[in-house]
Amino acid sequence: MKIYDISGFPNPARIRIVLAEKGLDAQIEFVKVDLFAAEHKQDAFLAINPTGTVPVLELDDGTFISECVAITEYLDNLDGNPTLTGKTPKQKAVIHMMQKRADDQLIDAIGIYFHHATPGLGARLEAYKSPEWAHRKEWGERYLEKFVRGMQYFDSVLKSNAHVAGNDFSMADITVYAALMHAGAAGVVIPDDCTALLAWQAKMSERPSVKNRSGQVMALPAA
Amino acid sequence: MKIYDISGFPNPARIRIVLAEKGLDAQIEFVKVDLFAAEHKQDAFLAINPTGTVPVLELDDGTFISECVAITEYLDNLDGNPTLTGKTPKQKAVIHMMQKRADDQLIDAIGIYFHHATPGLGARLEAYKSPEWAHRKEWGERYLEKFVRGMQYFDSVLKSNAHVAGNDFSMADITVYAALMHAGAAGVVIPDDCTALLAWQAKMSERPSVKNRSGQVMALPAA
Repeated sequence: MKIYDISGFPNPARIRIVLAEKGLDAQIEFVKVDLFAAEHKQDAFLAINPTGTVPVLELDDGTFISECVAITEYLDNLDGNPTLTGKTPKQKAVIHMMQKRADDQLIDAIGIYFHHATPGLGARLEAYKSPEWAHRKEWGERYLEKFVRGMQYFDSVLKSNAHVAGNDFSMADITVYAALMHAGAAGVVIPDDCTALLAWQAKMSERPSVKNRSGQVMALPAA
Repeated sequence: MKIYDISGFPNPARIRIVLAEKGLDAQIEFVKVDLFAAEHKQDAFLAINPTGTVPVLELDDGTFISECVAITEYLDNLDGNPTLTGKTPKQKAVIHMMQKRADDQLIDAIGIYFHHATPGLGARLEAYKSPEWAHRKEWGERYLEKFVRGMQYFDSVLKSNAHVAGNDFSMADITVYAALMHAGAAGVVIPDDCTALLAWQAKMSERPSVKNRSGQVMALPAA
């Protein structure tokens, strides 16, 4: 299998953590995509992922899978022991519910803030991410407010649960962790009163699948 | 099990189609939520779904599941024969990939257009959906452009596939169908040159799980 991505970015980090959790690193060939040169917005890349995002997983039969949830479903189910996406109907439901909340309230929200209200990844890429619009900065700042409310929501969840989707580590924890990583790189910190979220983040950063690649996952360039 | 929803709306329609596909209607008690009165934005409802959206599934053990993908994962896996979300790792991956594209490019996009750039569901609800912002209409119209590009993308997919995620009907078809339903109610039609999408929509509307509840699913009030 191949993964088209770049180290140090939030969504690639999600899948690199999944690979470590599942012990699949040795089966993957990584192909670097130059985000700063907007390689993922050019025709050659759009042919493998018309959405123009990384990471993309290429299966051995030539099928291309994009979107982190989809890639995680694939990798997690390969061994018949889905530890990250749930085994029972109820586990699957709770994990996907919390995953979607983490997408909407955290990782998508901080991305919109980053690409609209800050210099983002520079002019060459941002021309694709956020076309000219007089009110882009104001719009991005609304998503920062959404992200902060999201942190407060997940803090409330983690006050009574060890992990985002209940007692066990799951795909939803990985998404929240990657979103906070993106936020940190963009200069947005967890509020001091989100004590459960802060404690959970500290615990996650010691988890082997996260810690062993912390050099990679924390390297998002500052805005 | 209980489902908190209202008939005639796009996301509730997704789950009502799932129930029909899985033969589960008889096991469900429906509890009507008055969207026009913004009942889903009041404390009593937010206690069962802090995101303030319908539908919500209540399991017999009292667990509340929101988000259509999560509810679909639950209902589809109850009988151990997941026909809508995929059986093999590759099926799961392709379905979740196309599902996410349908969310981002179609059903979320038309929702943002509807709630920002049109009168939506009226002043009482829209105060929650789209707070005062001078540029809300302009922003909503950008999402209409995204939705139109999304229809063109799914038309290209359906030129070579019988269904959205390949040969077989899946959760992703339901999402695309519901998004087009929302669009139609908001006065947005499929472009004439999207012939594959039009043909697929016509075929879907004859599918028993869709047709038998067409009175319900097409009743979204005009903007």
